[in-house]
Amino acid sequence: MKISARNMIKGKVESVDTGMIMANVKIKIESPDIITAIITKEAAKDLGIKEGEDVVAIVKSTEVMIGKE
Amino acid sequence: MKISARNMIKGKVESVDTGMIMANVKIKIESPDIITAIITKEAAKDLGIKEGEDVVAIVKSTEVMIGKE
Amino acid sequence: MKISARNMIKGKVESVDTGMIMANVKIKIESPDIITAIITKEAAKDLGIKEGEDVVAIVKSTEVMIGKE
Amino acid sequence: MKISARNMIKGKVESVDTGMIMANVKIKIESPDIITAIITKEAAKDLGIKEGEDVVAIVKSTEVMIGKE
Amino acid sequence: MKISARNMIKGKVESVDTGMIMANVKIKIESPDIITAIITKEAAKDLGIKEGEDVVAIVKSTEVMIGKE
Amino acid sequence: MKISARNMIKGKVESVDTGMIMANVKIKIESPDIITAIITKEAAKDLGIKEGEDVVAIVKSTEVMIGKE
Repeated sequence: MKISARNMIKGKVESVDTGMIMANVKIKIESPDIITAIITKEAAKDLGIKEGEDVVAIVKSTEVMIGKE
Repeated sequence: MKISARNMIKGKVESVDTGMIMANVKIKIESPDIITAIITKEAAKDLGIKEGEDVVAIVKSTEVMIGKE
Repeated sequence: MKISARNMIKGKVESVDTGMIMANVKIKIESPDIITAIITKEAAKDLGIKEGEDVVAIVKSTEVMIGKE
Repeated sequence: MKISARNMIKGKVESVDTGMIMANVKIKIESPDIITAIITKEAAKDLGIKEGEDVVAIVKSTEVMIGKE
Repeated sequence: MKISARNMIKGKVESVDTGMIMANVKIKIESPDIITAIITKEAAKDLGIKEGEDVVAIVKSTEVMIGKE
Repeated sequence: MKISARNMIKGKVESVDTGMIMANVKIKIESPDIITAIITKEAAKDLGIKEGEDVVAIVKSTEVMIGKE
């Protein structure tokens, strides 16, 4: 399935921290960047997200802001 | 100012496509990735976003999804 | 690819209205519901979204609000 | 009050799972679809969301992505 | 209808700028703050949003970030 | 750093309620309004968010809906 979200960045799961409802997943992309994704605990379980796995961080482009020094 | 958004990825503006209300900004991060940001035309103008400039793509972590093959 | 977004609703494209930067896509799901998706013009083109096609409306669960009479 | 969010889908609360800060609410719409909403615990309490109740899932159209096989 | 979105800020429409697909609505809340809302053109029309009208800016709490000097 | 998010509302932290993964931060802006922000626990800690502090609530304009009586 192709999806309309424009941003798909490949990386590796660095850590998964699971709470009661949500999970905080750290994804290592190009060094030194880490992307943080907050997804539901059930999605983390459903996808079987574990440290060291190859995943893709997906972001809809309307959610991206820009900062400039 | 520090902000709570967890994801800040440095890159360079690759292109700016401006419509009547919104603007589509392509940001080149680590090759070969390009991040697409949809921001208001007024924000693009206010920040003076132009090709070749150093910017930061900012994404709140609750907006990041995860995909897995 | 499996994705973490919890909401995937099958439907048919009812109409595509394309602006300079964004596109408004109407997706018919179970009668009488229509889902409106605002995606980039480039995503609409890249996926080749046309009236009558089978698509899936995808929504991250942190984006769903609840209303109650 | 009318609101600008384009997507309002009627359903029934199927389950409410409450954590410390967030709550995961499953809403049954047309069979076999279930919509997952992540809202604050306080909102779930404030609206008195309970299994079997009629609710409306509300989604701003800029939050809807499209997938296509 | 009560909705789960935690943030409802009363204000007056200051301006409406309509594009092909989206509209940029400025809402004056307590002086000197202006809130900018990007909604679909169809929603702006459907609600009959016009300068000087009383409206409510609605924001889901998962969409609010925090900045600190 | 300037950021593209159009909405920055100054306020004071009224309370911080921390869960396992997320934190619920109440920000008092002009009386009687309170803004609720759901951010990660790590962001709340990283910014050192505490009651009584001056902060800025930041919202991307594509996340603002409009309600009208």
